[in-house]
This record gives sequence, C-alpha cells and structure tokens, in this order.
Amino acid sequence: LCPQPAGAGSMGYPGAMAGWGLLDYKTEKYVITRNWRVGALQRLLQLGVMAYVVGWALLAKKGYQERDLDPQISIITKLKGVSVTQIKELGNRLWDVADFVKPPQGENVFFLVTNFLVTPEQVQDRCPEHPSVPLANCLADEDCPEGETGIHSHGIKTGQCVEFNGTHRTCEIQGWCPVESSTVPVKPLLVQAENFTLFIKNTVTFSKFNFSKSNALVTWDDTYFKRCRYDSRYSPYCPVFRIGDLVAAAGGVFEDLALLGGAVGVRIHWNCDLDAGGSDCRPHYSFQLQERSYNFRTATHWWKASGGEARSLLKLYGIRFDILVTGQAGKFGLIPTTITLGTGAAWLGVITFFCDLLLLYVDGEAHFYWSTKYEEVSCEPVQTRGSISLCTVLTRALF
Amino acid sequence: LCPQPAGAGSMGYPGAMAGWGLLDYKTEKYVITRNWRVGALQRLLQLGVMAYVVGWALLAKKGYQERDLDPQISIITKLKGVSVTQIKELGNRLWDVADFVKPPQGENVFFLVTNFLVTPEQVQDRCPEHPSVPLANCLADEDCPEGETGIHSHGIKTGQCVEFNGTHRTCEIQGWCPVESSTVPVKPLLVQAENFTLFIKNTVTFSKFNFSKSNALVTWDDTYFKRCRYDSRYSPYCPVFRIGDLVAAAGGVFEDLALLGGAVGVRIHWNCDLDAGGSDCRPHYSFQLQERSYNFRTATHWWKASGGEARSLLKLYGIRFDILVTGQAGKFGLIPTTITLGTGAAWLGVITFFCDLLLLYVDGEAHFYWSTKYEEVSCEPVQTRGSISLCTVLTRALF
Amino acid sequence: LCPQPAGAGSMGYPGAMAGWGLLDYKTEKYVITRNWRVGALQRLLQLGVMAYVVGWALLAKKGYQERDLDPQISIITKLKGVSVTQIKELGNRLWDVADFVKPPQGENVFFLVTNFLVTPEQVQDRCPEHPSVPLANCLADEDCPEGETGIHSHGIKTGQCVEFNGTHRTCEIQGWCPVESSTVPVKPLLVQAENFTLFIKNTVTFSKFNFSKSNALVTWDDTYFKRCRYDSRYSPYCPVFRIGDLVAAAGGVFEDLALLGGAVGVRIHWNCDLDAGGSDCRPHYSFQLQERSYNFRTATHWWKASGGEARSLLKLYGIRFDILVTGQAGKFGLIPTTITLGTGAAWLGVITFFCDLLLLYVDGEAHFYWSTKYEEVSCEPVQTRGSISLCTVLTRALF
Repeated sequence: LCPQPAGAGSMGYPGAMAGWGLLDYKTEKYVITRNWRVGALQRLLQLGVMAYVVGWALLAKKGYQERDLDPQISIITKLKGVSVTQIKELGNRLWDVADFVKPPQGENVFFLVTNFLVTPEQVQDRCPEHPSVPLANCLADEDCPEGETGIHSHGIKTGQCVEFNGTHRTCEIQGWCPVESSTVPVKPLLVQAENFTLFIKNTVTFSKFNFSKSNALVTWDDTYFKRCRYDSRYSPYCPVFRIGDLVAAAGGVFEDLALLGGAVGVRIHWNCDLDAGGSDCRPHYSFQLQERSYNFRTATHWWKASGGEARSLLKLYGIRFDILVTGQAGKFGLIPTTITLGTGAAWLGVITFFCDLLLLYVDGEAHFYWSTKYEEVSCEPVQTRGSISLCTVLTRALF
Repeated sequence: LCPQPAGAGSMGYPGAMAGWGLLDYKTEKYVITRNWRVGALQRLLQLGVMAYVVGWALLAKKGYQERDLDPQISIITKLKGVSVTQIKELGNRLWDVADFVKPPQGENVFFLVTNFLVTPEQVQDRCPEHPSVPLANCLADEDCPEGETGIHSHGIKTGQCVEFNGTHRTCEIQGWCPVESSTVPVKPLLVQAENFTLFIKNTVTFSKFNFSKSNALVTWDDTYFKRCRYDSRYSPYCPVFRIGDLVAAAGGVFEDLALLGGAVGVRIHWNCDLDAGGSDCRPHYSFQLQERSYNFRTATHWWKASGGEARSLLKLYGIRFDILVTGQAGKFGLIPTTITLGTGAAWLGVITFFCDLLLLYVDGEAHFYWSTKYEEVSCEPVQTRGSISLCTVLTRALF
Repeated sequence: LCPQPAGAGSMGYPGAMAGWGLLDYKTEKYVITRNWRVGALQRLLQLGVMAYVVGWALLAKKGYQERDLDPQISIITKLKGVSVTQIKELGNRLWDVADFVKPPQGENVFFLVTNFLVTPEQVQDRCPEHPSVPLANCLADEDCPEGETGIHSHGIKTGQCVEFNGTHRTCEIQGWCPVESSTVPVKPLLVQAENFTLFIKNTVTFSKFNFSKSNALVTWDDTYFKRCRYDSRYSPYCPVFRIGDLVAAAGGVFEDLALLGGAVGVRIHWNCDLDAGGSDCRPHYSFQLQERSYNFRTATHWWKASGGEARSLLKLYGIRFDILVTGQAGKFGLIPTTITLGTGAAWLGVITFFCDLLLLYVDGEAHFYWSTKYEEVSCEPVQTRGSISLCTVLTRALF
C-alpha cells in the first residue's frame, strides 16, 4: 500500500473523508496563463459556438421547437363549368361537370376530360384487327394463328385474314367490334375547360398539438366562393383557381395538355409556427407539370333494344389533378431545447480541449505550460519511512 | 524562449515527456471549498438535471426509443345495409350497397348516398335556363347574347328569351334538357342509412421495425364480423360501426347530414411501443365532423330506343367518409439513448460553470475562492538566471 | 470577511483582477497519476466512444445528414391486356381494360376484375329472399313480419312466405329481383389476367432538398415501355410488371386469388443519399399479400325499352392493388452533425467522471489519489493576523 503524503497523513485524508460531505463544493483548479494568442483564439471560438447555437440552431432553425411532420389531411374538390363541342357521331353536344369529371365525388386525385376518342356502339363480334397492333397485318390466314392474343391486341384471333380497308389486310379478331380507330385527335374537343374553376377545400390537423386549420375563409356569405378567385396577397383564403391559370403556373400550355392530356400536381404546403399563435400558418400553393400525355379508356355498357350488350368505348384524354398536401408545425418543446443547448455546451468543452492542445504541444512555451498544467504525482509502495518524503518530494516535484 | 521552472528543468519536463505515456491517467485537480450554499445549490441542480433526463426525457418521453412516424397503411372498407324509399319519378324503390356507395370498391375515401335530386331523362336539346342561375332571367332576346355561357349556367345561350314557368322568363339554352330544378330536398330519402354498418379493415406496417398489425381480430369464425359491433372495452378488434353512432360520435346530427350531406373524418391512430412487444399496440378511433354540407353530380348515360343519347342526372347528397390513419412506433435505439444521456451530461457541465460564477463573482469570499481556484503563472522571456527564480516565484505565487 | 492567503494578498488578487482580462487563457490544472489500470481503462473507453460516434453514429448511421421523411408522391398506373371468357348469360365474351379495371383512371389503388357473379337483369319487384340470408327461411307468413329488414337482407319483407325453390320456402321481399344467387364460383372466369402487365409510374419529390426523381427511364424511345419488363439488375427503370409474377412475388397463388379475389400491396421504397448526388437513389420494390379474399358489388343501370329502370348487378371478385410509396432522403446538415459530435464529446466527459470514481473510491491507493486530486481550502473569518497563516497552512495543507 502507498503511504500518504506528509500533510495528507495528518489532515488530508480526514479532508477526504469530509469530502464525502455532500455539500462541499468542489471546483476545478485552473492555471491562468498570460497567453494572449491562445486566449484570444478561445474567446473567438466560444463566441462562434455561442453565435451558432443561439443564432442559428436555436433561433434561425427554431431548434427550440418540437415538430409535427405528418398532419392529418382532408381534401374536397369541386369543379365548375360547362363546355359545348361539335362531334360528328354525337351531334352538337354539351358537357357539364357530371360528364367530364371522373371520379365525380371530389377526391384529391381527379381527372378533367378535355378530349376524347369515342367508339360509339361496340358489340361482341368478329371484325378485322387494327393495323397499328403488333402482328395484326397479314397476307394469308397462316399469318393469323387461331386463338392467339397479345398484350396490345383488341381481341382473340379467329385464324382468318380479312380486309381492314382499301390499303390494309389484317387478322380477324373476336371481341368488341368495330375496333377503336387509333386516330390521334388534332384539336381538343373541350377547349372551354380552360375557363372552368377548381375549388379546393383542404383542412390540416396537427394532432400532436391539437391544432387544425382550413385553407378556405370561414364566412357566412355563401356566395363568396362563387365570386372570388385565389390571390396570394388579396384573397389567400379563397382557394378557387381557374384551370387555365393553374396549368400556366405549372409551366404547361393548356392547348397542348388539352389535346393529349397531362398530369398537374397541385402542392399545398403548410408551415406553421404555433408559438406565434398559428396566425402565420397559411397555405402555400405551388404547381408542377408531372406528365405531358395522359389518357385512359372507359366504357358505358347498356342492353340494346334488340337484346345483347353494347358499350360505347371512350378513350379519354385530359388533365389529371393530383393534390398533394404537406405540412409541418412547430411548437416550443423542452426536450429539443435542452438538446440544442446541451450540445452547444458540449462544444465549449471541445474548444477548451482544442486550445489545450495548442497551448501544450504547439505554443512556443509549450514545455513551460505543460509543467504548470500537469502536476505529477506517483508513488512506489516502499516500507521505509523515507518513502514518504519521496512521495512528498514527487508530489511537489514541480515546485 | 521562456526558461523552465526550477523543478521542471530537472524532472518536470521529463515528466511531461513521460506524460506522453498514453497510459498515465490525468485527472483534474479540484479545490474543495467548505461553501455550503453553493455546494447545496450544485447538488440541487444536479439532482434536477438527473430527474429531468432520466425521469422525463428518458422514461416519460421514451427518449431511449427511435421512432417510425410514417407507417405503410392499407385500408379496406365495406358497407352493409338496404334502404327503401318512395320517389315520385321512380316509384317505391329499394337501394342497396351497389346503388348508394361510390366508389364501390372500398377505398379509404368513399361516399354514402343519403339523399338525391334526380332529373330522370335529359337529352341534348333547347330549353329555358333555370332562374336561379346568374344572368338567366330576361325580358327580351337582347338580354340573352347568343353563345354566352357562365361558370354556373347549364348550357349555351341560344339568344332567345322564353318562358320558364308562369312567373319567370329566362334565356333559352342549348344543353341537357330539361335543366335540373334546384329544389332543395326537405326530408332525406334514405333515412335507413342510419342503421347501415361500416366495416373498416386497416393494416399498418412499420417497415423500419418490420412490424405489422391489423385492427381486425384474426379469427376462424367467419361470422364474427357479421355479429359484432365495435366497443373499445369489450371488442376493440371488431371494427364494425353503425353509421348513426359514428356520426353522433363525430358531433353531428344524422338527420341533418342525411338531408344536405356532410363529411366525416374517421381517424385511426396507432401508438405502438414495440419494446413492450407491441401488445399495447391497438387502434384508437376518433371522429370529426369536417363538413356540414356535401354533394356532387353524376350521370348515367344510355342510348334511347328512339336513338340518341340520354342521361339521368343525379345530384347526390350524402356523407363522405374520410378514413385517416396515423401511427407511430418506438423501439429502443442506441443513438437516441446516447443523445438523450449525452446532452444530460453536458448540462451537468453547465451547472458547474454556473456555480463557479456564483462562487467567484457573487459569493462573499469570492476573492478568496478566486485566488485558490486560479493559480497564476506567466513568464517574460529574460536571459538572466534570475528570471528562472522569477518564474518559479510567480508559479508558486499563491502559496 | 475572509482574509486572503499570503501571496494572494500581495499579487494573487490583482491576478484575479487581471483574470478579468478576457484574453487570459485559463486551463484546468491536472494531476498526472502513474496509474496504468485506470489510464488504460480510460483510453479504452475513449477509443470506444470515438469508434461509436465516428464509426457508427456518424458514418454507418449517416448522423451527419438531415432527413426528409415524407416526400410528395405521385403515382400513375396503367394495365394492359385482353381476356376472353365463356359465360352462360353473356355468351362468349371478351373483356378488355375498359371492362376489368376499376377505377379506370390509373390511381394508386385500383381493382383488377378476375372473376364475377352476374345477375343480369334486375328490376324493382317482389320475389323470394335468398335462403342464405339470416331469418329468411319461413314456414308460414307469421315468420315474415311485414316491413322487417336486416343488414344482410336483399329487401323489405312483404309479410308473405313463398316458395324459393323445390327445397326452400323463404319470405317474399320487395327489392331488386331476382335476388343474387350466392353461388361461389368454382373457377375464375378471367384467368388470362395472369398475363396482363401493370405499368407503375411513380415520381417522388423531396421538397426539403428540392430533389425529384422518377422510377421510369427517361427515354425518347416511346416503344421502350411496350417491350421491357422489370428486372432489378438489367432494367431497374422499367416499372412494367406481369401480374402473375407480381402475385407470386407477394407469396400468393394466382389461381386462388383470381377465384375469390385478394389484395396485394406493392411497396416502392426510396432511400436516397443526396450527398452521393442521388445516383444510388433508386426504387426498391416489394410485394405483400394483404388479403386472401376480396369482392364488392356494383351495378349498371339503364332504362328498359318497356320503360322502368333495370340494372345488371355484378359481384366482382378480383385483385386489389395498393401501391404504397415510402421514401427518405438524407443530405449533409450542420445541425445533425454538431448534435452527433457534441453528444460524443459529452460522453468523453462522462468517461472521465467514471474513471475518477474508480481512482478515488475503488483503486488501492484511492486515499493517496484523493489527497492529491483534491486540494482542501477553507477559512474561518478571524481577525488575528495569525488566521492568515492558518488559511495559508490549510491551503498548502497537502504539501
């Protein structure tokens, strides 16, 4: 066992015992060096950390807030407008919302028909395949293996090669006849769609903070939304958009989209600082053009007076609207605050460590500082009384 | 260059060298002060930090868990029930699921028809506009510019002013005729909808933890879901709700909603502690009334025996159900734990710093403590041998 | 007031004043102990923390990145294929996309009809209830209270008990007649659906980093997606899947699903490291079988030549596809980096504290180290000059 240094024997160790006294305040012993270089550097770095933690992490980045990143979202959409169009097969025809919005019930993804290719009266029958389909063209029946079908064909081959029109001979198929003519339209049929209006009602609920807000003005005037148009400055809470403007804002040309269809993303972003009472919590709208061509087929079926089922096949071109809502809310939270400040404090420690390195291994008087910062003690277990003095000597070695 | 202090010259600096010996243990030198005030304060603050970190941040707030906040969600809904209603145009008519749920395929947003305004047989024709439409009323043809159309009109003006009924004269339009009469219904037509049942099957998958759970009991008894009703205590895993109860829970009056429609949000929240084996991981249901009025138009088209297209226009009032699922799962993670504890440790450092300030600048014996805590060293480069003693003197200045 | 220690009186306290000089560098005074055990332990632990912080938290777990966990998602789907089937009521019938995809407009949740039970021509009438319905069977009229209806019944009881077929007598109901026969199909009618192809176009946008990416190859060759099939190695950007393969990958047997329907979840996961330029940011597909049975009813209504409304009721079995997209993106951020490193630094402090405990309370020479680490000072306010020397004595007690 290692004997105690002189003083320690007498009262140092009792001191140690007393040290158990919980209410003694122990504080690190410091060495003051008149080293202006390192001192200045340290202050500089400390200032930097302070500025970063308080200025940037805490205030600029709102490091004192805890966040709710996925709100509950409900969206209701409503389109308004009528459009008239002249179609050979259907005569002078007027379309309204019930015809050109699919699905009609106002969800967050819906489709506005702006153009279509109609095959008015199809029945289950045999007819020549369309030449555009792979492997449809033929010279003789051998080219048309019976029962063959492909991903893109309109039916099942019957095994015969028949005349499609003056110029083409194609395999006969069993299916919905006559087959759809794949003529691409040259002008959109529902150009008036440009003037339709879209009403988007969106409510976000940040359940973590029990806060809810809508993008539509709360008003008793039930004609307000019939009159108003969205304007970020003057009527931010009137979410009524003219389709033409909306497409333009997305960077598209309405005529082009109306012709071959497309997809437009309407993004509503909420960024709410609930410490500010949520007064600044307003929707931000942005629009992206997602697709430059979009279409799908649908059919309406009915029973003919003559019996048997018929359908009119519609290849619908149009604009698909995809309403994406994202949002985040922040509110003061103890935990994020303590983490931000705590890490800041930790960094102050890192600085001290770094400056010590400079002082002890880089600075000109490193050796001197070393010997003043570090007080060397050690003791080898020895029995002789002398050893005590040895220990003592070692202890005060640096002095 | 600054000369070494006496001892240092002889062995202090070798000691420094030896200090390079990595396995020397360097420990801060402390000064014990019998200052009960600061000491007590320090202990108090330390206790506070401990309590906060361990009690609040770690245990109460589960700071040891990493979280998965956006689960994958799949929802399947199914409505059951039949309703009979007496309609002038359609006779004594029975409605079942295939008629009053749109869309039928059981998505997370769907619409239950509770009331409707039917315009049974519309064809493309000319007829007087409805008086309620802006700019529809007229006295003479001049009031009806040909080709004019508005957002809310039912068609294109033909330029003539005709009689609508005994009391009104309105512009004639080209469009679907006759136009819809904007009579608001006085009593809901499908009141039995109150007794329908809604089955919601919801599965959440927390891919981060590879954990998945459903809100429906896993049972072999395939009649279970035909018999049971949801009850948070007795049958929490039977997600079958009576529409009437559901609307009431959302704070709505079914009769009102059934008359003019509305939107009800059904929120399912999952809060799963996977460290507890996910046994407590059960769905929590809550209901909000989002809209007090909701309707849309849809039409079924067919070809008349006499040729030409006809449609029956339906203005559907009803309750839109919007099923919102949110969830979070937590599981022990090393990183969050270390961050929580680490910041706690950093705060202990802050406390020491704060107490030092008190001790050194506020306390009555501040001066005394100052001089014991800080050991002043400095040295001016001098050539004379004396300087060494100077340095030495300075070093032990405080003793 | 407590008098100053000897030296302090003369220059220690001025030193203190000078200490106010901001640019003095204060550094902790350390005691070097030649204690190899604790020293080694400390180094070991420090190494461990370093390894954890840098190796695990920072690099492996990308602790230097801030994350965007909920991207904006847009999904467009398109099914291709034709299927022919022989149905008693409808003759040899061919189905194409317009018939068997509901809804047709390519959303993220859609339904592929693989089987159906058709009740071709229902009208509002009186007919016997189906025996399978609860409380439908009867012996006499008393068993059929007039006006009674149940959740699962097909209509309203008229109060009479009539013959259903040779074997059963059931209550007569008022509703859509004849009632659907609840015969479960024995073989799927649209088996070719196995060979259909599903095209999934998915675009994710991480708005926080203003980064967007699509899962489909950007190509001018507009036939590319007609030819290619998905292959994780050779064509990762061709999101065209064969339904059969897709169901198999989900762990289902197509024939079974085709017969009674089912639900398949298609999960697309994006994990993007934007520091790597997002080159590795590619979609990962996985498939889950969510349901082993799925069906719903829908009806097409029309007006009979004879007048009066008719509908053909379809009970559709099929595969519901639920496309779930999740994604996260990470990019270097100052705040997460400082938090990760800061907490690491804090842990180094914890280590020192822990080693001190060992050294001071566990180690063999604990007493010795105690007396060297802690320098005891205290002073009792006394007027005698002697007290100063006392203070001084105490101060240097350990030496």
